Amino acid sequence: MSVPPSDRLTHIDERGRAVMVDVTHKAVTERLARASATVAGLADALRFVEEHPEVLNEARMAGVSAAKSTSELIPLCHPLALDSTVIDFVIRSQAIDVRATTGTIGQTGVEMEALVACATAALSLVARLRTTDPGASIESLGLEEKRGGRSGLWVRDQVTGEDSSASP
Amino acid sequence: MSVPPSDRLTHIDERGRAVMVDVTHKAVTERLARASATVAGLADALRFVEEHPEVLNEARMAGVSAAKSTSELIPLCHPLALDSTVIDFVIRSQAIDVRATTGTIGQTGVEMEALVACATAALSLVARLRTTDPGASIESLGLEEKRGGRSGLWVRDQVTGEDSSASP
Amino acid sequence: MSVPPSDRLTHIDERGRAVMVDVTHKAVTERLARASATVAGLADALRFVEEHPEVLNEARMAGVSAAKSTSELIPLCHPLALDSTVIDFVIRSQAIDVRATTGTIGQTGVEMEALVACATAALSLVARLRTTDPGASIESLGLEEKRGGRSGLWVRDQVTGEDSSASP
Amino acid sequence: MSVPPSDRLTHIDERGRAVMVDVTHKAVTERLARASATVAGLADALRFVEEHPEVLNEARMAGVSAAKSTSELIPLCHPLALDSTVIDFVIRSQAIDVRATTGTIGQTGVEMEALVACATAALSLVARLRTTDPGASIESLGLEEKRGGRSGLWVRDQVTGEDSSASP
Amino acid sequence: MSVPPSDRLTHIDERGRAVMVDVTHKAVTERLARASATVAGLADALRFVEEHPEVLNEARMAGVSAAKSTSELIPLCHPLALDSTVIDFVIRSQAIDVRATTGTIGQTGVEMEALVACATAALSLVARLRTTDPGASIESLGLEEKRGGRSGLWVRDQVTGEDSSASP
Amino acid sequence: MSVPPSDRLTHIDERGRAVMVDVTHKAVTERLARASATVAGLADALRFVEEHPEVLNEARMAGVSAAKSTSELIPLCHPLALDSTVIDFVIRSQAIDVRATTGTIGQTGVEMEALVACATAALSLVARLRTTDPGASIESLGLEEKRGGRSGLWVRDQVTGEDSSASP
Repeated sequence: MSVPPSDRLTHIDERGRAVMVDVTHKAVTERLARASATVAGLADALRFVEEHPEVLNEARMAGVSAAKSTSELIPLCHPLALDSTVIDFVIRSQAIDVRATTGTIGQTGVEMEALVACATAALSLVARLRTTDPGASIESLGLEEKRGGRSGLWVRDQVTGEDSSASP
Repeated sequence: MSVPPSDRLTHIDERGRAVMVDVTHKAVTERLARASATVAGLADALRFVEEHPEVLNEARMAGVSAAKSTSELIPLCHPLALDSTVIDFVIRSQAIDVRATTGTIGQTGVEMEALVACATAALSLVARLRTTDPGASIESLGLEEKRGGRSGLWVRDQVTGEDSSASP
Repeated sequence: MSVPPSDRLTHIDERGRAVMVDVTHKAVTERLARASATVAGLADALRFVEEHPEVLNEARMAGVSAAKSTSELIPLCHPLALDSTVIDFVIRSQAIDVRATTGTIGQTGVEMEALVACATAALSLVARLRTTDPGASIESLGLEEKRGGRSGLWVRDQVTGEDSSASP
Repeated sequence: MSVPPSDRLTHIDERGRAVMVDVTHKAVTERLARASATVAGLADALRFVEEHPEVLNEARMAGVSAAKSTSELIPLCHPLALDSTVIDFVIRSQAIDVRATTGTIGQTGVEMEALVACATAALSLVARLRTTDPGASIESLGLEEKRGGRSGLWVRDQVTGEDSSASP
Repeated sequence: MSVPPSDRLTHIDERGRAVMVDVTHKAVTERLARASATVAGLADALRFVEEHPEVLNEARMAGVSAAKSTSELIPLCHPLALDSTVIDFVIRSQAIDVRATTGTIGQTGVEMEALVACATAALSLVARLRTTDPGASIESLGLEEKRGGRSGLWVRDQVTGEDSSASP
Repeated sequence: MSVPPSDRLTHIDERGRAVMVDVTHKAVTERLARASATVAGLADALRFVEEHPEVLNEARMAGVSAAKSTSELIPLCHPLALDSTVIDFVIRSQAIDVRATTGTIGQTGVEMEALVACATAALSLVARLRTTDPGASIESLGLEEKRGGRSGLWVRDQVTGEDSSASP
């Protein structure tokens, strides 16, 4: 039964904000984003990777798959057709660095895709490390660089650390 | 083992229709659709929203997320890159109106995306209302307006009700 | 860089409520739910079904698939292993009734699964009807009956309509 | 805690290959792919389809839905907006042939989409046939034809069988 | 607007069959299924695997992930909690054999999970082989063995081939 | 065409390890896990939350939804029926702490579910913060506590930091 037309309107949701903003008229440009993170607190990272040679490839695929489902994970994100996703690792003595690079040509940036890929690759490593290193943690998960769009190039300040930014 | 080539063809599926029609050569135009619904049969809608301030935002996000997965829910629907999704609410004394607006630039319309967003936002409210209002129902879930594509503008007739249509 | 331990705690989120409530210690009982809806405003429902014999089966499968993904669509819902889902239709002159019945043995009810199945089956019909009946709408989408759990049997009042309830 | 900068880099993952290759600068062309398979080893295929008239439509929808989720199933695949998916069947005496045709206009081919659609439609038939034909198998699941992209037309050699190729 | 109660019922969908059958009262037993397939028509399988050492692991993960989403791919299938999934490969001169074994303790079998895992692992190999072996095909994708449930043990007849069955 | 039986077996994949280990015979116990993370590097966290009151609820829902899809994101993880997920926040001057608690009764732990929920809630905040705080990063994402299963209670050492463990 539909609401009777005489029903008085008592309250309009005034904070009603769009969860997914309109990008219909944003310019189509080439986009690139790079995110990084460190899986820290490992007893012996090199030995772990040598004994489990498949874990890096496994983390790489988990990251790429997650990048493709970013808009399902993050309510804000627009669905987009990723053109490329690359995930690299650096094995340190007690840590593994993860870096994810994403690219597309479109109306919205691919920063969240890079962050989601990086986070999921790191979490996939943590899933494997749980028995030997239950205290492992993910550190410094953040954006390193973005290109394209109205704001153009942005690069994290390499000197002062994670929480400052600079336009070169 | 493959089927022997001498196997006679006994029956061709003649009603074999494409479930997902070909849109390869349809024009790319700006698309917009608006759907609405009413969650009716509530004891006291205003009080419910005041006591549960997070429910509208929760329904809004459920709706936006569902809009993005429309092609997974409705077999007919083409996957498409939604450019915008907005969900609004009107709180009445015993009902909550839900309205979803979707837009994109593409070859196929976004009507089903608006309907799915609207239905899921309404269902999310119903999920919250079940304890206090088990008899709540969703009414008048339908398309209000569509723009773009070959058929152009369509607006539901405001005077005679839900089940007639008019081209202004 | 982690937050320095000396950082004073300025604000604790006090409305922090569980989005998914704890059911760890709820009893495991047999659960059943039945939801219904009507796709209304059709020019000639019987002719539509005769000319498109596959639409009911298509809607049935869309509904069953959606029931299985209820916990992805509705933030509140617990994931659960549905034991059965049945979708039935009644073809009227200008409307199609949809009814979904879901069942499981578990700690949480299957009402939202029945509602999601019913809504999606109805939306799948609407997707097919858009060309001939753009003004079609979904009406009276609501719960009809639930069994199991602490609250036991609940049946919608057949006499007075959608918004009253009765424990027989 | 982030990794100290003095931590020496002990090993760089040198086989670090992109799981999802960069297609940013590939040309946008019209793409088409056709895949086929045979569900073999059936006691009486024609009777099975006559007694279960909904199975072909069910398999068709399973195939179309799967085609749309190809990039979630196959780690390598780019997400893309499929423009069309058609699934056809040929009923033989002891087998059912399945053929899937996919198309889009884009930077990447739709071969995997056709193969996934075809495989899933065939698996959906097998799911139904398990009681009567537990030994049913899927044979000759492969690509038949592809069009578009840099490599242009490719057609499977019809004479010598499945494992040779020819450019007409 | 709801359907007027005087609307005469003109047609009841008589072929209305449950797409997902009721397993509420089926016994909980330990279940196991084994499926296999062969990726055939390769120029040099051993060389391919040596040059691309990550492909087997990639296919293994694609298969395991797909096994977990079987109930989303196959409309008939109940959602279930897989307890184990193992995927093995045998590299032959011009082919790669894939075998998937799935297990759980539950009310429904895991045959479709094994078949979906096997098919997806094989398709993931085909995705990698497309450049060198466009004519590669998947052969003999079928069930090898199942244990548990009312029907107990079933093993494919090793002597006469794919389309016969025998209870040892 | 199936592989000829005379084809010699040239190489067996010896590193063929199960990606999803068998838990069929593990004991069913009550499980709990708690993970935490800090979104650091914010200009003014309290002001951000005051100006965007919906972001915490949005992050909470993103976290809960992601927890439910953990087995899709992390290849290793078994699908399981989460019984509860709670996400809390602490707003500091330049950081927001996120904590996720997950629970179930089952054969496998819920640590990855807690970590995925925590990571996704934090990433959802980062998605909102990108304009004002592009250099925001996620720090100290790790497990705090787990209960249940064969290994019983595990608590991160509060004194010495992230990378040590202690059984109280």
